[in-house]
Amino acid sequence: MTDNTLFSSAASRMAESAIRKMGAVLASGRDVISFAPGYPAPETFPWEEFSQIAAELLASRDAGVLQYGPTRGYKPLLEAITGIMQQRGIAVAMEQLLVTTGSQQGLDLVARVFIDPGDVILVELPTYVGAISAFRNVQASMVGVPQEADGIALEALDETWQRLRSDGRRVKFLYVVPNFQNPTGLLIGLDKRRRLLEWAERRNVLIVEDDPYRELYFEDSASEAEVRPVKADDTSGRVVYLSSFSKTLAPGFRVAWIAAAPEIAAKLEMAKQAEDLLTGSLDQRMIYEACRRGVLERQLPLLRQHYAHKRDVMQAALQRDLRDATWPKPKGGFFLWVTLPASIDASAMIYRAIEHGVIYVTGESFYVNGEGQNMLRLSFSAPTPERIDAGVARLAATLRAEAEARATAPATGGPARS
Amino acid sequence: MTDNTLFSSAASRMAESAIRKMGAVLASGRDVISFAPGYPAPETFPWEEFSQIAAELLASRDAGVLQYGPTRGYKPLLEAITGIMQQRGIAVAMEQLLVTTGSQQGLDLVARVFIDPGDVILVELPTYVGAISAFRNVQASMVGVPQEADGIALEALDETWQRLRSDGRRVKFLYVVPNFQNPTGLLIGLDKRRRLLEWAERRNVLIVEDDPYRELYFEDSASEAEVRPVKADDTSGRVVYLSSFSKTLAPGFRVAWIAAAPEIAAKLEMAKQAEDLLTGSLDQRMIYEACRRGVLERQLPLLRQHYAHKRDVMQAALQRDLRDATWPKPKGGFFLWVTLPASIDASAMIYRAIEHGVIYVTGESFYVNGEGQNMLRLSFSAPTPERIDAGVARLAATLRAEAEARATAPATGGPARS
Repeated sequence: MTDNTLFSSAASRMAESAIRKMGAVLASGRDVISFAPGYPAPETFPWEEFSQIAAELLASRDAGVLQYGPTRGYKPLLEAITGIMQQRGIAVAMEQLLVTTGSQQGLDLVARVFIDPGDVILVELPTYVGAISAFRNVQASMVGVPQEADGIALEALDETWQRLRSDGRRVKFLYVVPNFQNPTGLLIGLDKRRRLLEWAERRNVLIVEDDPYRELYFEDSASEAEVRPVKADDTSGRVVYLSSFSKTLAPGFRVAWIAAAPEIAAKLEMAKQAEDLLTGSLDQRMIYEACRRGVLERQLPLLRQHYAHKRDVMQAALQRDLRDATWPKPKGGFFLWVTLPASIDASAMIYRAIEHGVIYVTGESFYVNGEGQNMLRLSFSAPTPERIDAGVARLAATLRAEAEARATAPATGGPARS
Repeated sequence: MTDNTLFSSAASRMAESAIRKMGAVLASGRDVISFAPGYPAPETFPWEEFSQIAAELLASRDAGVLQYGPTRGYKPLLEAITGIMQQRGIAVAMEQLLVTTGSQQGLDLVARVFIDPGDVILVELPTYVGAISAFRNVQASMVGVPQEADGIALEALDETWQRLRSDGRRVKFLYVVPNFQNPTGLLIGLDKRRRLLEWAERRNVLIVEDDPYRELYFEDSASEAEVRPVKADDTSGRVVYLSSFSKTLAPGFRVAWIAAAPEIAAKLEMAKQAEDLLTGSLDQRMIYEACRRGVLERQLPLLRQHYAHKRDVMQAALQRDLRDATWPKPKGGFFLWVTLPASIDASAMIYRAIEHGVIYVTGESFYVNGEGQNMLRLSFSAPTPERIDAGVARLAATLRAEAEARATAPATGGPARS
């Protein structure tokens, strides 16, 4: 095919995500310490339990284990999810739930069900790149709202909404990650959560609440009370809530869920039906059994300790090696969001970083307004503590080499931007 | 949420698929013999082999088995697929392949990458309902082309194209299922395949070739030579080819693939990245191991026999019980496409059929132009031979009851349409 005019306008604008591009670098087989993708630590996967579960499921000869099944999801899993939601303070009926093929599909379905080209989605500055990709694919217009230490800035949010309204633009929803946001690690304060919901009611805007990291609060700095979802106080069905088993059991199963008002859930189901018919049958049963047998519940305290320790290791290494860097101390989740001196261009520096054997995701990837040039996201979740330590040393070496190159470069020059 | 104006225009038009609705009837627990969904026969699943494979994969502690992975697909699986394609007469490089979460995702990705609202997709009359759903969700305009005994009518195809062109409409692609089409079971003749490709070249239209049933040719009536894909003779990258492991290994894994020109495959990958990141990791490895260990190859002759036998049973039962019915004799695949006398309304009759304990999919579901009122699709793939026999008897009883009801109904009435 040589006729590019055959592509849709959405496809013409599609670009490879920064994180996945980093994945390709990793696959090249060099010794690169990766702080790039937010992968869970494979040493925490409950291998033994999954072996046992798979053996029993496949020995059962129950056709449903390998057969097509309902788009909504495997019914016992949906029931288990109502239990999980209950623990999070959210009462949901089955008709409000939909199993999705990872939360990425959840984001995509939400985008398809609400957005016509040009409709506005409000997002945090910065926000999750996967959401940006999904929203871009439906040709949404994304408008950013700054964050404060306790999350999204409410005054700026309303000012933005008013400006858009006076421009005649329709805001369909606000996308937020209230718990240990990707990429900043920030937590929206409890009082702010309530005010956010009031704002959404007043302005008739939906909230899409993405909550993959909720269970991974670090017990030295955050409590379960602090991660109460916005959805827990939603009495009118205004919040569409997404969560996932990817960070707590394993991402390779691609099992996540959405909770939404029944009429929204019905539309999401129809969109999913046309998109992939159903989420993997064996995968859903593996996850269900891990819930039923208490595997998930036993994992959670271990995961909190595991990731808190890795965060400590990364923070100590940064304090030792990167004196000029600052970051909000994460109280949970997978990420450290690092701001470097304003003179640093993290996108230009990535090639030098790869030469030094370390990668990160450039800050710009998370901004819908072009900011973030001197910022980067470091994931501490997957590498071992030793690799975290060594990787930060490599990052420090990268920064020193960058400073030297700049000192010797012609005054008019400086590193080229890709 | 009470504000329906928040939905996108695509969502406002979404409707539940007829086949999935039948699934809900089945789930109600009545004794209903289902000829509705095209499920493979679970007794043919290679349970023992999958048990062995799962045990080894999970014992390996190889992180990749449960971790995120590349959007393109698991590399050894992609390599195995190049081998499968070779056997089908199609030479492809890795950069032309993409693993998809079932072929339903493949159809959705193709639609998203090529279609802007209002763009035309040409489809066969009748055509696969899942394709209709995927194409409707991107707001394509679907225009039907009649079929003959050897598949799509080429003269009507070109006339349709010319008419659309003179109306100023853009035809993006033609969607065809050349092998044992769903729902008709028809096979496009070999000569016609070549002429179809020439036509597509001449008119600069892409062909989307959906080929899930290719391996299921029945050896008493079709040969491997007759199922040669259109893609096998495509030298210019004009054909986007979809196939799947759902009908040959098991559908619950949701593993399928697309082969397309590299620049198309790259766009499809980006669309998939934003849609679900990757297809299940364990699932891809299960399928790969089933290929590598020869499980797939050993399955195929068994499946051909299994489904040929079920087709025989269904045909014999229809000949015995439904004297007024006609159908093209399927030489492969899962379906019998039955035409009843013109006075029958298969959609209105479905409720009576459920009362008699049998279900089918109404013909109309497969037509983009409202035809098919007196037609129905019967799947012989999943039920046992005994259930097929009993189900056809129930269908005959339904038709008798329908005739009686019509005979006693007031002349102005007749059964109400839903």
